[in-house]
Amino acid sequence: MRKYRIGILGMGTVGQGFINNYHLNKEEIDYKIGGELDFVNVLVRNTVKKRDVNLDKKVYTNQFDNINLKELDVVVELIGGVSSAFEYIKKALENGCHVVTANKELMAKKGIELIKTARENEVLIRYEASVGGGIPIISTLNDSLSSNKIERLMGILNGTTNYILTKMTKEKMSFKDVLKEAQELGFAEADPTSDVNGSDAAYKLAILSKDAFGIIVNPEDISREGIRNISLEDIEYGQELGYKIKLLALGEKSNEHVELSVQPALIPVEHPIASVNYEFNALFIEGNVVGEIMLYGKGAGSMPTGSAVLTDVIDITRKKNDYIGTCSAKDIVVNNIGRSAYYVRMEVVDLPGVLGKIAVSFGEQGVSLDSVVQRARGGKHAPLVFITHEIDRATLNAVLESIQKNNYVLEVMSIIRVVN
Amino acid sequence: MRKYRIGILGMGTVGQGFINNYHLNKEEIDYKIGGELDFVNVLVRNTVKKRDVNLDKKVYTNQFDNINLKELDVVVELIGGVSSAFEYIKKALENGCHVVTANKELMAKKGIELIKTARENEVLIRYEASVGGGIPIISTLNDSLSSNKIERLMGILNGTTNYILTKMTKEKMSFKDVLKEAQELGFAEADPTSDVNGSDAAYKLAILSKDAFGIIVNPEDISREGIRNISLEDIEYGQELGYKIKLLALGEKSNEHVELSVQPALIPVEHPIASVNYEFNALFIEGNVVGEIMLYGKGAGSMPTGSAVLTDVIDITRKKNDYIGTCSAKDIVVNNIGRSAYYVRMEVVDLPGVLGKIAVSFGEQGVSLDSVVQRARGGKHAPLVFITHEIDRATLNAVLESIQKNNYVLEVMSIIRVVN
Repeated sequence: MRKYRIGILGMGTVGQGFINNYHLNKEEIDYKIGGELDFVNVLVRNTVKKRDVNLDKKVYTNQFDNINLKELDVVVELIGGVSSAFEYIKKALENGCHVVTANKELMAKKGIELIKTARENEVLIRYEASVGGGIPIISTLNDSLSSNKIERLMGILNGTTNYILTKMTKEKMSFKDVLKEAQELGFAEADPTSDVNGSDAAYKLAILSKDAFGIIVNPEDISREGIRNISLEDIEYGQELGYKIKLLALGEKSNEHVELSVQPALIPVEHPIASVNYEFNALFIEGNVVGEIMLYGKGAGSMPTGSAVLTDVIDITRKKNDYIGTCSAKDIVVNNIGRSAYYVRMEVVDLPGVLGKIAVSFGEQGVSLDSVVQRARGGKHAPLVFITHEIDRATLNAVLESIQKNNYVLEVMSIIRVVN
Repeated sequence: MRKYRIGILGMGTVGQGFINNYHLNKEEIDYKIGGELDFVNVLVRNTVKKRDVNLDKKVYTNQFDNINLKELDVVVELIGGVSSAFEYIKKALENGCHVVTANKELMAKKGIELIKTARENEVLIRYEASVGGGIPIISTLNDSLSSNKIERLMGILNGTTNYILTKMTKEKMSFKDVLKEAQELGFAEADPTSDVNGSDAAYKLAILSKDAFGIIVNPEDISREGIRNISLEDIEYGQELGYKIKLLALGEKSNEHVELSVQPALIPVEHPIASVNYEFNALFIEGNVVGEIMLYGKGAGSMPTGSAVLTDVIDITRKKNDYIGTCSAKDIVVNNIGRSAYYVRMEVVDLPGVLGKIAVSFGEQGVSLDSVVQRARGGKHAPLVFITHEIDRATLNAVLESIQKNNYVLEVMSIIRVVN
């Protein structure tokens, strides 16, 4: 079995997500890549620290020079920051290693230089995890939309600020209070400056401006404004006028110029990006052929970001993607039991006590109800609507059939699945 | 310059979108593929029919046997249906051509057989356009989420039925009336059966069940229910209870079985997929590592679907994706003029006529207002909130500065961009 030899620089939360993802789905991934990943070296500051990851102790080193790049297929850089990460990646590429990185600051500031070095050395550098965590944004812009010119990007690219704005909107909490709560829960950094002032989103937008517009931009040139000054009053007026406030990274390209900015913005509540809440991220893309596309998912976290790193590694190891499916399992059967909550509308006799009798009948037959709506219509018949808790469809059918035998139930009008 | 020789079977709306997309973005695409596409043969029934596409007349033929497969790199199948499409694709693969198809029925019924033929002949078959039009669903499941096991899919995969349900919900029109209107506008087929009864979505779900779950399913085994029986009453009760009704394609996989179904379903209004309206499609994916991901966009139409076909062709021609950007343009400048509508909140003196004076001041300086909110607060000061029409940020700043010189404007509290 072919072994792909991997060196990893840094073993924090993303590194652990990467390794744990591989071990969790190893069988399927090995099938896809026709081989397996061999984690040969891991560079860390502290080689004896306990980590939540299943790796042989002897792979750890605290000296980059102990890593024999000539023996590696892929180097995964998860140190962050610019100075040593840049030096290590450059050396890895020059020694014929493919590189995967999650480093947004580095890719924003030095991405094009590293891509050119990769090209000169006929290897690949991938950085899906640097923007939008587990959402496949970079590959979508470069591969899946390769037939389009991208005209506009609108991104919610920072989970911390989106969490804060969502909480302010939904719970009428002040910026300061939400930030404090988020820090206590670990959703926000002890020093949240780079998130809150828009710098983190600006780095990500700088990366996207290359992949969407083909433009190399210094991230310092992206105008930015943070969310510190957003008041509850503005959020409420926004709602009154039909808008939500989000921290938006905006890129718009015309023939002559590109506009790149990060700022709080009002978005119509009906717009798909307005429904992106809490720690979720999204990128709304306008292509000149495909029209509007949106990608949505978790923009941070050990597993989602680790998953993006692993996807890049898999992509590099696969020479040929022939889409035969995701695994070789054969003992799976299609079995539609229809287990779900259900909405049921029935026409009943409009007499006192009927609702109670029906609820009791359901209870006796093991069906519990989540909510009930009864509207008086002032006639002999009335509609009765309820939503059940989870139940198999066949059971529900049997119960409804039995309940229809009662003479106060006239007809079951609708049965519709409820999906969360 | 390398020429990629393409044969096309069928030249309807999708074929025309494919060709027109290439011509529209030819410079950038040729840069990406390091060559150009040469449309050598086009198989059509009627070779002299006028088509909205710029192709040399001599490429048309009405005989498949006139096409010399040995000379082609890629065959693009856009005939639809199963019988001849299957035969032609099989021959193309056996003759060493890569194949791109938009044919959902064929891929649902015979996909695995064609993929195996492609493998045996060491060529690729791609079918991004068969599900979700321009949305990169197939490549996301196969490539971008290759590190994940997919546990659940929830898709709005049919634009006609989503259009009908959206119109019913928003305009309280009956199913019958919306269908009639949609047919007149060309959004629905003269015979809408396959859309309305869920078959079209079931074909797409059968394709996705291979790419997401690794399961080969006969599309006839997918349980389905259409939207003909959805009444306005159910839609209204749903709203009252906090739900929207959508035609959902559902796939859920456990260790022992997979559930595959297409049916109308109630979805909580807060769920991202509930905001997918009109002709838009979306796929909501749950991966065992990445968590929730959603892809959103246009699921049909000449250009979006043509764009997916062209992306597959580009993907096949690119040996190496090194993500250097989308074009070689260099004369683009970053120029943040901040042209946008703006929300402005100011504190003003609470006297009769102040609103009018401010509106006049804006008008005199060329700023037109879209909406204004004034709330009496019962004190000396009151907040005044308005949204401007589009304006450059510098102009807005100048106007606000000048208006602040009036003694009835106390302070500008907030200026926030409004984005649509």
